[in-house]
Amino acid sequence: MDYPFITNMRIRKVSNNEAFDTNDQLAIEEPLEIQLQYGPAANRVHKSISVTMRTPGHDWELATGFLFTEGIIRNNQEILFVEQETFDKNKIVVGLQENINPDIQKMERNFYTTSSCGVCGKSSIDAIKTISAYKNESDTICLKAEMFYNIHEIVRGQQTIFDTTGGLHASALFDLQGNFIMLREDVGRHNALDKLIGTALLNEQIPLNSNILLLSGRASFELIQKASLAGIKVVTAVGAPSSLAVELAKELKITLIGFLRDERFNIYSCEERIMM
Amino acid sequence: MDYPFITNMRIRKVSNNEAFDTNDQLAIEEPLEIQLQYGPAANRVHKSISVTMRTPGHDWELATGFLFTEGIIRNNQEILFVEQETFDKNKIVVGLQENINPDIQKMERNFYTTSSCGVCGKSSIDAIKTISAYKNESDTICLKAEMFYNIHEIVRGQQTIFDTTGGLHASALFDLQGNFIMLREDVGRHNALDKLIGTALLNEQIPLNSNILLLSGRASFELIQKASLAGIKVVTAVGAPSSLAVELAKELKITLIGFLRDERFNIYSCEERIMM
Repeated sequence: MDYPFITNMRIRKVSNNEAFDTNDQLAIEEPLEIQLQYGPAANRVHKSISVTMRTPGHDWELATGFLFTEGIIRNNQEILFVEQETFDKNKIVVGLQENINPDIQKMERNFYTTSSCGVCGKSSIDAIKTISAYKNESDTICLKAEMFYNIHEIVRGQQTIFDTTGGLHASALFDLQGNFIMLREDVGRHNALDKLIGTALLNEQIPLNSNILLLSGRASFELIQKASLAGIKVVTAVGAPSSLAVELAKELKITLIGFLRDERFNIYSCEERIMM
Repeated sequence: MDYPFITNMRIRKVSNNEAFDTNDQLAIEEPLEIQLQYGPAANRVHKSISVTMRTPGHDWELATGFLFTEGIIRNNQEILFVEQETFDKNKIVVGLQENINPDIQKMERNFYTTSSCGVCGKSSIDAIKTISAYKNESDTICLKAEMFYNIHEIVRGQQTIFDTTGGLHASALFDLQGNFIMLREDVGRHNALDKLIGTALLNEQIPLNSNILLLSGRASFELIQKASLAGIKVVTAVGAPSSLAVELAKELKITLIGFLRDERFNIYSCEERIMM
């Protein structure tokens, strides 16, 4: 079976001082330009918003997920159309309803610098708290520790199917009982998460406050930011979190788990949701 | 010994259905705003260029390396000053000589979309070839395969000292004999490479055409792009390369090695430089 996000290539392998030529599979990386159309018909604005290096596939979800997790659109109803030309798969146009006036500035990351204290982790966190619609809602989430061992197993099985290249990051979604819902992969970790959240957005499943997000790699500030905008309350990473990822998770009452391995993991925030 | 890019935190560890609280070390992640000053004194432009999430340390190198690998500045002589305020370490100002008129557009990635064929991998590669000053120079680089086993060992030793968090990416530089020159680490893989190239830029060591670059993770298009702007001819990654990384390496005659492990690796381009 041939997946469109993998390409075959002739390479040379070196092992124990011997070299031989063989076939190898690589994750495809291609640029995707995301264009936005907005404003009234009489004065419609066409603007190139971003070029991201991504693995082709789920491009609609990537584009809409990106716009949503960057705070430019707030829900699926703001979208009038999504267009991707057949002969140019690397350009996608998202048209908004005429009455929507998106805040493009947000995407340009100026929000980091608007605080009077200058640029710092605290102002970054404050900015996310301002734009996140799902902060600090009370909940009764209570999860058994052993469930996390299972979801790690499930993702490893799922990812093995797709990622024969060693070059793809994955984001996976589960319900609170640990049932697998979906997995998205990409050469870029942000893209994998945007594809997943974009899928949920287009399916009207936001907020994802009864779900668990699993990240195949490390947990950075920006990944927690994206998860928080989708209302996700439990984030699990196979790798390490950064300091600011943990601080943001604490502020937003997101349970952040890291270093998920066989039968063990670390809890960095809101550990009261996890019971033995 | 206490490194400023690591912070301590109280966390909960879960292992085999038992939980206990303990201390953990996390990689520090903080935003850095890079501002540019350019133009004649009578009409000096002050412009915020980028906010990147980075691990503090080597910030001068990160800022200047970023400006260089994005094609905004071409050499160290274009820099008039670099300023970082003591009370706000997360903002850095790079002032250019008055006669320098940088091409800010480049950084905004519009170069991906200027080709008449639309956005595609080929136009991305053509754009890099246009701005890279060190393309296709002839060389006589010839490297023994076993040297790569050694440089991997050296970096693992070096990185163990610094990265007790599991959360830092590394870029390391060697000479063509495999002697270690320097290592830079960051939560962002692009930042680690920008810090390394920025150090070389400030030390007037560009082009790095007699060096080997080692990346602790995967090799993406953008990392090969940055390496190529510094004139690097040999790039070695511990992880997988993407399709477009390999295509760019082939176009620019960069030897690209991936999956560097104990006594084995894959060669994706310009394998003629490696002998058994």
